[in-house]
Amino acid sequence: MLAELKGLNEECGVFGIWGHPDAAQITYYGLHSLQHRGQEGAGMVLTNGETLTGIKGEGLVTEVFTADKMKDIYGKASIGHVRYATAGGGGYENVQPLLFRAQSGSLALAHNGNLVNAVQLRGQLEAQGSIFQTSSDTEVLAHLIKRGGFADLKERVKNALGMIKGAYAFLIMTESEMIVALDPLGLRPLSLGKIGDAYVVASETCALDITGAEFIRDIEPGELMIINDEGITSERFAHSSSRSMCTMEYVYFSRPDSNIDGINVHTARKNLGKRLAMEALIEADVVTGVPDSSISVAIGYAEASGIPYEMGLIKNRYVGRTFIQPSQSLREQGVKMKLSPVRGVVEGKRVVMVDDSIVRGTTSKRIVSMLKEAGALEVHVCISSPPIKNPCFYGIDTSSREELIAASHSVEELREMIGADSLTFLSIEGMVEGIGRPFEGETRGQCLACFNGKYPTEIYGETIENSQKC
Amino acid sequence: MLAELKGLNEECGVFGIWGHPDAAQITYYGLHSLQHRGQEGAGMVLTNGETLTGIKGEGLVTEVFTADKMKDIYGKASIGHVRYATAGGGGYENVQPLLFRAQSGSLALAHNGNLVNAVQLRGQLEAQGSIFQTSSDTEVLAHLIKRGGFADLKERVKNALGMIKGAYAFLIMTESEMIVALDPLGLRPLSLGKIGDAYVVASETCALDITGAEFIRDIEPGELMIINDEGITSERFAHSSSRSMCTMEYVYFSRPDSNIDGINVHTARKNLGKRLAMEALIEADVVTGVPDSSISVAIGYAEASGIPYEMGLIKNRYVGRTFIQPSQSLREQGVKMKLSPVRGVVEGKRVVMVDDSIVRGTTSKRIVSMLKEAGALEVHVCISSPPIKNPCFYGIDTSSREELIAASHSVEELREMIGADSLTFLSIEGMVEGIGRPFEGETRGQCLACFNGKYPTEIYGETIENSQKC
Amino acid sequence: MLAELKGLNEECGVFGIWGHPDAAQITYYGLHSLQHRGQEGAGMVLTNGETLTGIKGEGLVTEVFTADKMKDIYGKASIGHVRYATAGGGGYENVQPLLFRAQSGSLALAHNGNLVNAVQLRGQLEAQGSIFQTSSDTEVLAHLIKRGGFADLKERVKNALGMIKGAYAFLIMTESEMIVALDPLGLRPLSLGKIGDAYVVASETCALDITGAEFIRDIEPGELMIINDEGITSERFAHSSSRSMCTMEYVYFSRPDSNIDGINVHTARKNLGKRLAMEALIEADVVTGVPDSSISVAIGYAEASGIPYEMGLIKNRYVGRTFIQPSQSLREQGVKMKLSPVRGVVEGKRVVMVDDSIVRGTTSKRIVSMLKEAGALEVHVCISSPPIKNPCFYGIDTSSREELIAASHSVEELREMIGADSLTFLSIEGMVEGIGRPFEGETRGQCLACFNGKYPTEIYGETIENSQKC
Amino acid sequence: MLAELKGLNEECGVFGIWGHPDAAQITYYGLHSLQHRGQEGAGMVLTNGETLTGIKGEGLVTEVFTADKMKDIYGKASIGHVRYATAGGGGYENVQPLLFRAQSGSLALAHNGNLVNAVQLRGQLEAQGSIFQTSSDTEVLAHLIKRGGFADLKERVKNALGMIKGAYAFLIMTESEMIVALDPLGLRPLSLGKIGDAYVVASETCALDITGAEFIRDIEPGELMIINDEGITSERFAHSSSRSMCTMEYVYFSRPDSNIDGINVHTARKNLGKRLAMEALIEADVVTGVPDSSISVAIGYAEASGIPYEMGLIKNRYVGRTFIQPSQSLREQGVKMKLSPVRGVVEGKRVVMVDDSIVRGTTSKRIVSMLKEAGALEVHVCISSPPIKNPCFYGIDTSSREELIAASHSVEELREMIGADSLTFLSIEGMVEGIGRPFEGETRGQCLACFNGKYPTEIYGETIENSQKC
Repeated sequence: MLAELKGLNEECGVFGIWGHPDAAQITYYGLHSLQHRGQEGAGMVLTNGETLTGIKGEGLVTEVFTADKMKDIYGKASIGHVRYATAGGGGYENVQPLLFRAQSGSLALAHNGNLVNAVQLRGQLEAQGSIFQTSSDTEVLAHLIKRGGFADLKERVKNALGMIKGAYAFLIMTESEMIVALDPLGLRPLSLGKIGDAYVVASETCALDITGAEFIRDIEPGELMIINDEGITSERFAHSSSRSMCTMEYVYFSRPDSNIDGINVHTARKNLGKRLAMEALIEADVVTGVPDSSISVAIGYAEASGIPYEMGLIKNRYVGRTFIQPSQSLREQGVKMKLSPVRGVVEGKRVVMVDDSIVRGTTSKRIVSMLKEAGALEVHVCISSPPIKNPCFYGIDTSSREELIAASHSVEELREMIGADSLTFLSIEGMVEGIGRPFEGETRGQCLACFNGKYPTEIYGETIENSQKC
Repeated sequence: MLAELKGLNEECGVFGIWGHPDAAQITYYGLHSLQHRGQEGAGMVLTNGETLTGIKGEGLVTEVFTADKMKDIYGKASIGHVRYATAGGGGYENVQPLLFRAQSGSLALAHNGNLVNAVQLRGQLEAQGSIFQTSSDTEVLAHLIKRGGFADLKERVKNALGMIKGAYAFLIMTESEMIVALDPLGLRPLSLGKIGDAYVVASETCALDITGAEFIRDIEPGELMIINDEGITSERFAHSSSRSMCTMEYVYFSRPDSNIDGINVHTARKNLGKRLAMEALIEADVVTGVPDSSISVAIGYAEASGIPYEMGLIKNRYVGRTFIQPSQSLREQGVKMKLSPVRGVVEGKRVVMVDDSIVRGTTSKRIVSMLKEAGALEVHVCISSPPIKNPCFYGIDTSSREELIAASHSVEELREMIGADSLTFLSIEGMVEGIGRPFEGETRGQCLACFNGKYPTEIYGETIENSQKC
Repeated sequence: MLAELKGLNEECGVFGIWGHPDAAQITYYGLHSLQHRGQEGAGMVLTNGETLTGIKGEGLVTEVFTADKMKDIYGKASIGHVRYATAGGGGYENVQPLLFRAQSGSLALAHNGNLVNAVQLRGQLEAQGSIFQTSSDTEVLAHLIKRGGFADLKERVKNALGMIKGAYAFLIMTESEMIVALDPLGLRPLSLGKIGDAYVVASETCALDITGAEFIRDIEPGELMIINDEGITSERFAHSSSRSMCTMEYVYFSRPDSNIDGINVHTARKNLGKRLAMEALIEADVVTGVPDSSISVAIGYAEASGIPYEMGLIKNRYVGRTFIQPSQSLREQGVKMKLSPVRGVVEGKRVVMVDDSIVRGTTSKRIVSMLKEAGALEVHVCISSPPIKNPCFYGIDTSSREELIAASHSVEELREMIGADSLTFLSIEGMVEGIGRPFEGETRGQCLACFNGKYPTEIYGETIENSQKC
Repeated sequence: MLAELKGLNEECGVFGIWGHPDAAQITYYGLHSLQHRGQEGAGMVLTNGETLTGIKGEGLVTEVFTADKMKDIYGKASIGHVRYATAGGGGYENVQPLLFRAQSGSLALAHNGNLVNAVQLRGQLEAQGSIFQTSSDTEVLAHLIKRGGFADLKERVKNALGMIKGAYAFLIMTESEMIVALDPLGLRPLSLGKIGDAYVVASETCALDITGAEFIRDIEPGELMIINDEGITSERFAHSSSRSMCTMEYVYFSRPDSNIDGINVHTARKNLGKRLAMEALIEADVVTGVPDSSISVAIGYAEASGIPYEMGLIKNRYVGRTFIQPSQSLREQGVKMKLSPVRGVVEGKRVVMVDDSIVRGTTSKRIVSMLKEAGALEVHVCISSPPIKNPCFYGIDTSSREELIAASHSVEELREMIGADSLTFLSIEGMVEGIGRPFEGETRGQCLACFNGKYPTEIYGETIENSQKC
């Protein structure tokens, strides 16, 4: 599905490198390959061993890191971030990495995830006199680390991590070291690679491939890693019973060329498509997928069903903020925005339209309607995940249960609302096995909370109301 | 194939509308959907019935037509242009539409194609005292029209068209009418549509679909159409024995959702893939295509061969000029630019890599090498067109025979140069029939000059050396 | 006076250099020092001996010539231009130098002045088949030169100059030489200087000083100079009885540090102030001048009258187009734009307010009113030139007689309209002698047409209606 | 003197308004008129009674507050800031107002001045767990206010003010009120005005005039003022024996149309010139001043001495960062940057050159040399202040005693260094009386620390090394 079209949004990607003379440029390419994880802001902070310098700004990687700015920064190590901004999330200040300067040294932080107790922690910190310039979780962690007093940095970070709950992949950098931390359930992906003697850490393995880095291993749940000029040291800061990788990373967030937990995302999606074909058993003339994420699914569906795959929908590519939105009258006249149907492919055909999920239902409705206007005889909607019935507290922007159409409507009601001739959701079992995990009726390896409501961590009442995720 | 990666470049797209209060905005969306035909410059000129006003500039549609500028222009009719700049093609001045103002009225021109006798005509005009501010063919036509003396505009345009030779689709606009002309062989596509009472003309039908226009018919070879507030009148300015549509429009230029001469481009490409599978008969584990243009081909190949389609190559999307190029050392280190292999898909596999053409061979070599580094056991390159052995004089930027690697090397030599385990080109017959034309051993419907050297028009010696195509 | 505040506008400045490795940078500084002569557009064209390359754009010198663009151009010689755009003068296309490329070589032109027979010439050229992309006089000259046929360039330029009438200072450049021409009456200033072996030509001597050039001499009326690698050659292309330098160059156009015809502009203005004091004989407490041009005048007035000079008005500096204009309500509330009164200086005082001219009278009215609101007891307006009663056809933008308030009103009527306690205009005699010329009741050395209607050239009816001056 | 030319730099201006529907626009014009106090950054924060929103950025007021951004903010009250950045002062983060968001409400702060104990306070705060994102004094005050616990805001602000020492004019804003505070010695200017029912506070009265506000009174030393929808309440938070207004505000910082402590700056400067003429008693032909600040002084000098004032130096106006700096070779060739001599005025003359101060001496040397190259026979430098021998700790960027040339050299040594024929400094007595204060041999009304070393507050060792002033 087109991430921008619905209320289901990935939040942020991180990239770090230690020990390379071209750290800034490599971070640039790494963040560029993670651009799909956040288009609202980007930043990087470098250390040359003495001081930290940084660039950040609102916009795409290519907009923020201009040649002009890149020539002013240098260093042997860097952490970077791309950010998805939730509504009202306040501009430049919230763009990461955050950088704190103290007389005793500086601290930069970049974060992907969401803390479920950020509101509580922030309230306590404010009561103790802390002041906040951003609305991000990341500043909460910075305060907790700083308040750790005179212990060494690693101890203070461990203490601070012990106080936060939720999903997080953190990169922290001082003048002389980089600290990497993943939450005890490993809800967010984070991988380690190597370019020559330099270490690279990234939200997705595509960023390793694109920068010419060799994959070493995934960061483990509850792992705290320290990278400096001496090399790597690692320990567990928390006991972790089992991984709970966010399932949506496979279903639609990650790039198809990334491997998450050793599973290639394209392959996983194709398998989801095969399972979906087996569960749906629809008679049709063509299969088509909603670009980009559902193309792989549709190809799998076509292979398993024998119904030919066709390019029935095409994405109109453009770059976000400078694109002029059509006026209401032009929209009514039929000016297409992000997606167009291919009349030559769907006209007079029974179409299977594959998509990854339904959040509010409005996008599915619009696509079904476009396909029918382009002459499709029937439109069968097949979704490569089960109905999303519960909000996410771990970094995905499905703001509240009220917006989740599947939380309050039956599949048949949904089908009618979107105007499809049939509507099929993949079963939880089909999804988990399609991804390549054994399914044993419960959370094992994957977080399935948005489908089955079983949250792998404690949840706090105010969690989603007031917090700026990333 | 990635258009930017090789010496085979589409040149320009045109869009026009007459009789709509939102002419400027509709032209914006139309040109945006034609962006793949030219990324170097864009422009539009509007008429409000009294005067012509315009916007043009170097860059993408979204960069040139900012909200700020769009609010200053208005009118009921418009012609627009997106431009591909050949090397040295001189910046802003050459961006179209060109606009000429005379005391007797103004004239705007937008052009897709290439005149083969532009150099000769320009020499004659200069000898007669004409001065040129651009290096484009379009200015030659403007001079010819102007020198037609006091005849009415239509007659002067007809006279001028009688003097030019080559491939062209012209949109010409004055304060009170739009003139549309297509060369006698119809080498370039041009279609007519309608939005309510307003007429729309565009290089590809995707621009009709995206703006909500209904397709009426293609402009015919040698047709001269006049559109004004009275409606449409049309006549033939030249006798045309048969159409010679540029074959590369199907093979890689056009958007897959466009129909050219009634044939859907995606469908044509899929059929090219099926023919290719039948001709190649390769044993392999996966089929993959070079995005974007060869995805459809690869899917057709997979369907016909039974070898599963996989996303073995992924495009790294970014917007041209602001992207910082990696230094040579980073490139050697393996920083990927426009394309990355998907290791999880190709590792340990025998791969069929489908692409649309080979011009210089350097790109194919790079891709084969990337796939092997990512672990492919074998890489079989299958090309959905025959070897390109002759330069194009009709608007495609294959500058000279020396650059066409297939002009001087056998297929086996080429295979060795690009490092593939096998190399298959589609036969001319397979290509023409795959597109959906009857093949009768000669140019019929399609221009095949770049493959077989049979140019459908006279050719002049200096044609390609000095001329700025579009 | 503030040039932007009234309908009296200078039009354009030119700068050229031949034979210096830093030609581009020197042209940059030269044009920057001429910025007061035109803020709407700037351009330069360079030759490296082989080809011409250029930069031009709308905006200030510092906006058009960015570091980014400056690094792409180079050459040993250059001509440049800053432009004042009259209303409707059509954007980028009209920015100079204009550059024409022919198979036989290129031609770049930059122009300061106005041709009085441009409309006639253009009509004739269009009738002969010429087409125009700009609305500027300069393109007319280019056509005339081109149509000179196969004679050598100098002869063709001389022929072309023989056909044009009006005020002009032209810089023309080909790959191998620069041609400098000044109209037979020398209505516009143009000076020659030298930096080492390199020759410099500029509209004002301030551009020589600022670039470290040594002043050699003024270009003479009717002079045609050719500068190339061999040095300078010069001849007269027209007989010139006497110079008719534009008087407004002294009164308000030129920079105070320039010398025109050997007379320093600041000194001339100060003398105008002294004459004005002697003619006005007003009793007052303070003298103040409207910045920037009337500061020198006011100081002269103060010296001659014994009334102390005070800074009663201050200019609010900003750069044009990005400044947000106050809404009407804020303007009524008294938000000051370009000029503020200094209450501490004028409160309770009888003020002599010195300005250079009155065109429409609206600005004078506004300033008088501001001073009175700031507490001035009396405001006596003293103008350092006589009433402007006739339009200028030589490059100053006083569009028509209807706009010239002094053309239809007596001094007493004007005084009442602007709300002043008294209004004094300097006499023609006082002005001419103040500048430092002998006054003999007629045009001698100076053009006085806007004051006395005696135009030094023939005038054509359509002259000002349709022509784009510079 | 040209502020940019030497190490003596003003630091920041503030503007606030409460109770006007056009608060944002008025703040824009107010800050624009204070642009001379800081060109490196600008910002404003607005309240609509519910929430705070802001714009800030590096650059000039017209660059930061674009029309595009201005349309997104609104509110009935605003505080704004223009900033001068000291070297290394770290970009965007330090641009003010700083904005802190807490669950209990937000706090915005804008500051002009310098805290002498900021380093100590920051060290204490960091030891208590505070973290800092900026290097500005202002963040120290924010922490102090926040740590005041649960007392009401006014009490917490008073407590915080009780802990800081130095020079400061603070504007603080919450959703529902604005707090204004001036240090107990009143080292920085701050005035109160009114537009209808709305209250305005600004660093200089020129900002009141420009926005159409009526001057009410100056904020008093040690005054704490609260402005909200109920009106104004005021109290003293500190006992203040006497004012110690920064003398340099008169000598060169402030705009000539501002009144400081009831004294018009232009008038004060003119009087400084008269005193200087009486003390110097030089025989010369012309007097000239270094623009902009010394023009008034030179006019006073001319009046008192009878030597005519001439414009012997002219400022080349441009806008900072986009101006391309001449290469070293061009500089040596004599390309002028910010200032040019007027040859026609100084050639063959004995010149009195008036300037406001000497910090490092390099600028004076350059100007003397330029005047002599332009033909001046003698150059007599007259400075309208005494030698600066001591660093400023109150917000003026004279970083250290080592840079103050007058701290270690006699007047005769200085004269020789700058190449002048004579060098005269105004006496302290002359300066203080010239400004219009009674002089009684000691600090009375004015801070004279940079001249006589008598600092009106305690001074801390680390004060200037580590602190970011404003």
